[in-house]
Amino acid sequence: MLPHILKDKKIVLASQSPRRKELLHSLGIDFEVCCSDQSENYSPKMSNAEIASYLAIQKCKTVAKQYPTDTIVIGGDTIVCLEGEILGKPSSIEEAKQMLNKLSGKTHEVISGIAISYKNKIHNDFDVAKVHFLPLTEADIDFYIAKFQPFDKAGAYGIQEWIGLKKIDRIEGSFYTIMGLPTALLATMLENIIK
Amino acid sequence: MLPHILKDKKIVLASQSPRRKELLHSLGIDFEVCCSDQSENYSPKMSNAEIASYLAIQKCKTVAKQYPTDTIVIGGDTIVCLEGEILGKPSSIEEAKQMLNKLSGKTHEVISGIAISYKNKIHNDFDVAKVHFLPLTEADIDFYIAKFQPFDKAGAYGIQEWIGLKKIDRIEGSFYTIMGLPTALLATMLENIIK
Repeated sequence: MLPHILKDKKIVLASQSPRRKELLHSLGIDFEVCCSDQSENYSPKMSNAEIASYLAIQKCKTVAKQYPTDTIVIGGDTIVCLEGEILGKPSSIEEAKQMLNKLSGKTHEVISGIAISYKNKIHNDFDVAKVHFLPLTEADIDFYIAKFQPFDKAGAYGIQEWIGLKKIDRIEGSFYTIMGLPTALLATMLENIIK
Repeated sequence: MLPHILKDKKIVLASQSPRRKELLHSLGIDFEVCCSDQSENYSPKMSNAEIASYLAIQKCKTVAKQYPTDTIVIGGDTIVCLEGEILGKPSSIEEAKQMLNKLSGKTHEVISGIAISYKNKIHNDFDVAKVHFLPLTEADIDFYIAKFQPFDKAGAYGIQEWIGLKKIDRIEGSFYTIMGLPTALLATMLENIIK
């Protein structure tokens, strides 16, 4: 069982996302945070799943270099994809509005990659979930952006925030994958790696 | 948009569930709580959706009697159903263990009914979601019950708690319906009722 098998291990989360911190904490895991100043470049030939895995591995590798090899370093990356287009973090109110208008009334995909470094090996996997937004009004979008400032979130929304409660009526997959950390997948990976 | 159209309305939540309170608050709605001492009896001929709707209506009606008719009273009820069997709130550690052992490795259904009383009318609807649990070990179950005491939860689990993060890898439907309040459905109903 997770908290027990990890009792004597040092665990480092290679991410500054407050959602990933909160979820790892809720899994019952004690950890410290170490962020890499990783550029988020990837090859245009990669699939969305490859991008999410690749960026998770890059974050994980950069941070793992700074620790002894028996430290467990966890990296994660989340991609939001609508009809073939990747929606990153919006850099302005205007871009956030554009993204939310695109997502309105449609189903999109969220892909979260995980990479775990332990004893000179990198283990990685990813999880995919589908998210359906009800139609959004201009008033919904303006209120949400002004109040929640979703500039640190791919796709310009957090499913756990007001807009997610009000306008996401259906998902297929893991809620936590959409929040940014596939917790059930991560727990299974950790149990397999440690045992 | 929700918080604005409800600005001058008095809203009462007819439920003592901390999850429903938290979710209604996260929707941006100001409300007070008034609980009914409602028995949870229903006809054995009812379908699961009818049971969830019926119990939501009963809670709503009992509380609405105590307020002026222009008060918005919201009642909710949640049913957990596995292979035709309804799993209620466990009354002991042993019963909680039995329920979690039944849910382990399987997909079950959660049905949340909503009833809204406003100006002498009751509006009601329900939402259904599917939940898949990975296989649970005895250690998982014992740790969860001891630490989280899920005796106030139908089916003996909360999807937002440790066991949900670790062992629910997939849902189909709304996460908030599984938590006990279909927030997107409720928001749509409120907008249609008030406008």
